[in-house]
Amino acid sequence: MDTKRKKIEDLIKTFYAREDIPAQLAASARYSLLAGGKRLRPLVFLELLEGFGLSLNPSHYQIALAVELIHTGSLIHDDLPAMDNDDYRRGVLTNHKKFDEATAILAGDTLFFDPFFLLAESDLPSSVIVDLTRELAYASGSFGMVAGQVLDMAGEGKTLSLREIEQIHQLKTGRLLTFPFVAAGIVAGKSRTEIESLRKTGQQFGLAFQIRDDILDITATFAELGKTPGKDILEEKSTYVAYLGLDGAKKALHVQLTAVKAQLTELSVMPKTPLFELIEKLDMEQE
Amino acid sequence: MDTKRKKIEDLIKTFYAREDIPAQLAASARYSLLAGGKRLRPLVFLELLEGFGLSLNPSHYQIALAVELIHTGSLIHDDLPAMDNDDYRRGVLTNHKKFDEATAILAGDTLFFDPFFLLAESDLPSSVIVDLTRELAYASGSFGMVAGQVLDMAGEGKTLSLREIEQIHQLKTGRLLTFPFVAAGIVAGKSRTEIESLRKTGQQFGLAFQIRDDILDITATFAELGKTPGKDILEEKSTYVAYLGLDGAKKALHVQLTAVKAQLTELSVMPKTPLFELIEKLDMEQE
Repeated sequence: MDTKRKKIEDLIKTFYAREDIPAQLAASARYSLLAGGKRLRPLVFLELLEGFGLSLNPSHYQIALAVELIHTGSLIHDDLPAMDNDDYRRGVLTNHKKFDEATAILAGDTLFFDPFFLLAESDLPSSVIVDLTRELAYASGSFGMVAGQVLDMAGEGKTLSLREIEQIHQLKTGRLLTFPFVAAGIVAGKSRTEIESLRKTGQQFGLAFQIRDDILDITATFAELGKTPGKDILEEKSTYVAYLGLDGAKKALHVQLTAVKAQLTELSVMPKTPLFELIEKLDMEQE
Repeated sequence: MDTKRKKIEDLIKTFYAREDIPAQLAASARYSLLAGGKRLRPLVFLELLEGFGLSLNPSHYQIALAVELIHTGSLIHDDLPAMDNDDYRRGVLTNHKKFDEATAILAGDTLFFDPFFLLAESDLPSSVIVDLTRELAYASGSFGMVAGQVLDMAGEGKTLSLREIEQIHQLKTGRLLTFPFVAAGIVAGKSRTEIESLRKTGQQFGLAFQIRDDILDITATFAELGKTPGKDILEEKSTYVAYLGLDGAKKALHVQLTAVKAQLTELSVMPKTPLFELIEKLDMEQE
């Protein structure tokens, strides 16, 4: 998995070293991209492909990078003063603090366009690229990530039902976490039915991830989190922990992750693979 | 041409009336999309297709809308306080003034993602969609519009050479104005050589448009412009007018537009068509 992480980072460096990209823009994009993310979305995609028996090629890494660019761009915009107003992210200054607000807005913007260039440039059948493009745009725009962020902001200071919280997270983070599952199915040439099963698995994975995020906001220190903890409480956000209590949230996380593993096994992904390790690391019950 | 404009606006209304888009997000996107743009990019694309002898179908309108969404999204972000800080655009309040900054950032973001969904959903051959996706992402992100905006901001308060001004405009507005020319060639199944000729024509059209914009910033009133005039001078931007004088700029505009018409004739687009009318309306020599 470390080799894959390294390859993703090499691809970031190569892409944003292109001479036809203005130096200031490339520097700002690279800064946030290389500020130490877990690369969860790209890794899930790549590990799933291997789980399906494919040998990874450069096009697969381009797709993996595409989803990471959008994720990073969304973090840059979320951190802006007009949004969550965060000074730190992953332990270092946020993009607008390191550079300035205008640069951060534009770095985010460019990280939303470049992924579609990467997809279109990949050496995959056209019909596969079109399917990936549709899924990635669906996961990100008015039906996905951006929609979720709008609902999340609108919900601040209000008491939301567990259903409303779930809907927000399904859009805000769930769709982009689901993309690697669906995309792996598309690239591996899985049937429509199998792809829809993968979508369901991805949704459960996304839900698990959000529960974990809510738990960490309470339990983790600044050093562990790399950003200011306790912000959910300050912003009066409705969280899983607020609803289920800390132990209940940990239990819910465990249930979700167990379901994800069971579904992947059904989709003939081998247990004990790096993908399973990755999923188990997210669990907090054993800790 | 009015029928086409109407159809584009109908498509905007239909798309942003979808129930799976949060109402606040749709309202904010619709507000800026329906605040009365000229629809120049979509119209050039559609008129060119007709000039090439094609009958327009719904997919063509989806491509036309895609480029308009990105254009509008870029205006919303350009107007933000951290960028040009404009209160008015097209005669009405800018998006962040009408709503708030966070909403405006997110509306812009969603207008950058949804176009790629529209492209992927269009009923055209996959290879055509992939080519259009590549061109649109190229025109918009780190090699186009966003790159140009970064260079434009970096150039404020500095004296730039005419060559540097041209480079900035070629990226910032030129690439997205070139897209309709290239896209029409792709959709009409033109040869590689013809598409590259169309790209050159589009670049000249983009240059003409920028010269015109610089002239209008000096000569137009608030009512004519729909935004605060004279901002280039206030922000010490290097413009064509500053370089060539007002008469020189008008002459340069005329020369560019004449070249565009000549090239289109060579590409067997008939003169006296609506496209030529549209181009001639941009000229200021006869006025």
